[in-house]
Amino acid sequence: MTGIYFSGKDEKNVTSYQNMTQTERQEEYAKLQAVYESLKTQGLQLDMTRGKPCKEQLDLVSDIFDMLKEPEDYMVDGIDIRNYGHLSGLPEAKRLFANILNCKPKQVFVGGNASLQLMYGVLDNAFLHGRTHSPRPWCKEPVVKWLCPAPGYDRHFKMTQAFGFELITIPMTSTGPDMDAVEEAIKDPAVKGIWCVPKYSNPDGVVYSMETVVRMASMKPAAPDFTIMWDNAYCIHEFEGEDVEFPDILHQCKKYDNYDMVYEFASTSKITFPGDGVACMATSEGNLKDFEKWIGLQTISYDKVNQQRHVLYLQNRAHTLKLMKKHASVMAPKFQAVLATLEREIADLEIAHWSKPKGGYFVSLYAMEGTAKRTLALCKEAGVAMTAAGATYPYGIDPKDSNIRIAPSYPPVEEVVKAIDVFCVCLKMAALEKLGV
Amino acid sequence: MTGIYFSGKDEKNVTSYQNMTQTERQEEYAKLQAVYESLKTQGLQLDMTRGKPCKEQLDLVSDIFDMLKEPEDYMVDGIDIRNYGHLSGLPEAKRLFANILNCKPKQVFVGGNASLQLMYGVLDNAFLHGRTHSPRPWCKEPVVKWLCPAPGYDRHFKMTQAFGFELITIPMTSTGPDMDAVEEAIKDPAVKGIWCVPKYSNPDGVVYSMETVVRMASMKPAAPDFTIMWDNAYCIHEFEGEDVEFPDILHQCKKYDNYDMVYEFASTSKITFPGDGVACMATSEGNLKDFEKWIGLQTISYDKVNQQRHVLYLQNRAHTLKLMKKHASVMAPKFQAVLATLEREIADLEIAHWSKPKGGYFVSLYAMEGTAKRTLALCKEAGVAMTAAGATYPYGIDPKDSNIRIAPSYPPVEEVVKAIDVFCVCLKMAALEKLGV
Repeated sequence: MTGIYFSGKDEKNVTSYQNMTQTERQEEYAKLQAVYESLKTQGLQLDMTRGKPCKEQLDLVSDIFDMLKEPEDYMVDGIDIRNYGHLSGLPEAKRLFANILNCKPKQVFVGGNASLQLMYGVLDNAFLHGRTHSPRPWCKEPVVKWLCPAPGYDRHFKMTQAFGFELITIPMTSTGPDMDAVEEAIKDPAVKGIWCVPKYSNPDGVVYSMETVVRMASMKPAAPDFTIMWDNAYCIHEFEGEDVEFPDILHQCKKYDNYDMVYEFASTSKITFPGDGVACMATSEGNLKDFEKWIGLQTISYDKVNQQRHVLYLQNRAHTLKLMKKHASVMAPKFQAVLATLEREIADLEIAHWSKPKGGYFVSLYAMEGTAKRTLALCKEAGVAMTAAGATYPYGIDPKDSNIRIAPSYPPVEEVVKAIDVFCVCLKMAALEKLGV
Repeated sequence: MTGIYFSGKDEKNVTSYQNMTQTERQEEYAKLQAVYESLKTQGLQLDMTRGKPCKEQLDLVSDIFDMLKEPEDYMVDGIDIRNYGHLSGLPEAKRLFANILNCKPKQVFVGGNASLQLMYGVLDNAFLHGRTHSPRPWCKEPVVKWLCPAPGYDRHFKMTQAFGFELITIPMTSTGPDMDAVEEAIKDPAVKGIWCVPKYSNPDGVVYSMETVVRMASMKPAAPDFTIMWDNAYCIHEFEGEDVEFPDILHQCKKYDNYDMVYEFASTSKITFPGDGVACMATSEGNLKDFEKWIGLQTISYDKVNQQRHVLYLQNRAHTLKLMKKHASVMAPKFQAVLATLEREIADLEIAHWSKPKGGYFVSLYAMEGTAKRTLALCKEAGVAMTAAGATYPYGIDPKDSNIRIAPSYPPVEEVVKAIDVFCVCLKMAALEKLGV
């Protein structure tokens, strides 16, 4: 455990588990076991597996469906938004996302409901046909290696794994990926890219520092077609405090003569709806042209009616930030419940430390090494489902068996409280088992 | 020209261009040229390039957007349709499409707004990972060959071309692809699949005969992973007469022990909206499982709100057929205008023959060999845009330079009349040029 994140430890005089005698640990374990057994009898069914908005959040934006009413509403800038065409998105939708991401409309592609699909598209196109500066299609390379700052997002890692890429773990720090490690790794021309979640990273909640952003944008990788997958999923997703300004990665890359190196992604999955939002991608005009050729093989256009609903409903960045405040008011109590319980129950025991994020969808907890799996197995048995241990690492293997992603957004706050109580009991039991009881 | 389709020739005593003397042809050409020059001065801008519904058709279904109104409408069978999840589609959406396609709900995957994307997915998955019965991923095969009944759909051909497959032309007949040619071709284990548009084929409007369907379903290809891409795009798209019943290809394939051989595709692109419809795929349960694993890499779920709108609006096959009658009432006059003009202007000249379809979105015309490109160049100069000559053949090359796809659905009927008038003048001029003037 690096300890670089956030210590949960206060300077109080509670005996840490490490400092207990074996007898004390045995007594403590027996107490916990009794609590655990009674929890099991409650038949709990609590789900903190995924970072998804709750019903209350979805209800508060459902008036978006009233945005289009009259037949003339479907004619926008001379475009019948119900028909085929305008593959790269409605002009006004490009303007909206450019405003949110602080880039230019001509750099934006507006897609369907899933930014993951756009990410897959960039990789699939590179795999089949190569990128602009590729010596050959990636499927013709003997090996493609990919940098995975970890802990990170399981779906990112699985996607690159599915293409047969070799995943290389890059440690995360409190300012973003370890850039020394990145700069060393990119000397290998087989290293073709990196995953990044630059703001409120999944799961650690880290906001990349300006230094990290600049080092990233100014890299000189050996591979001429090195690709930064900049998944800005939580670009305006503060649940505490004001919006944190964040540099435009396209501008930074262009400044350092790396304009084609980066693809940025975002979506309204956690602004409007996970299933019925709008996703976008921002990249150089050359990359966009290349992407449109590829995506044009499989669709004539995305759902422009839904794009137009979002244009009318979200309006611009400032207006969208007001909406995010409403989401924050639903999210914050759940995160506060998790953090308060961890502080009260765990901080003094020296068995874990955890992130205290101000945005995003996760609390990232580092349990004592070798206890994450056991903790979650105990949780499951008591009816509390969490993201599988190891999921936040390449190939699903956390070498230290330590990181646990807590996703408190979906259940009602009273269930979050209940679930985190159960979790703390399990975390303690697993630690005691490890220390010896 | 095979003449197997539909002769445009009547037994009237008009001199065909072939029977004219050169002087007669020169006189005729001079007259046409005068007409053509006056047409050019009109500054026409008429578009018959693509098979897309017109505004009137979109208006008549736009009340679908009123289907969901109250917060409780978003809870369906215990599912919050706005949130993540249910990747393979809403249960009721599966039931709807199974009813329309005459297959079983458990065989149906409901996707986004583009069936092309599902087709691409099946091929991409096979390319990256191989299909269930594949000896290896298709990207590891030295060569993959693909059967393309032609004339056919340009986007199909381009998609298989993009994967680097070698396209093999299979002649179309009045009962579907030439099955003798297909059965011969599949003896080659490198031949991995075939494109089919079984009902109102694009562009010929052919409905495959029962014999063709049975021969297709009972094939014994050398490749264990041979794949029929059954694009049933016009499954209920009659614009003249009653719905023509059509066999369920999944049932047929299963009967002949080829259950995993076929993927069927359909969408509401021409039932509700091209840009905002819902696409589906039907295949064996094993294939579905395999596909879901792949699609799960790039999306957590499709737009279930739009699926639910369609469930409520279309209800079932019988109710959907009533809606198709309304579409037919808009479409039929346009097709009648095309066919009547061709009959009047061209039939006796022996310079072309054409299809007389009862459904689908196209009239397929076979001009005198070597005149299709010239005809369309003349049209373009006069302000009438048509699908590029050759587009209906693999690699965009019509070896006879004969086939022209006429797509009359989008422009208003008066523009269709005008456009087909211009087209007839151009067709005649090109023929006369070829015969010698």
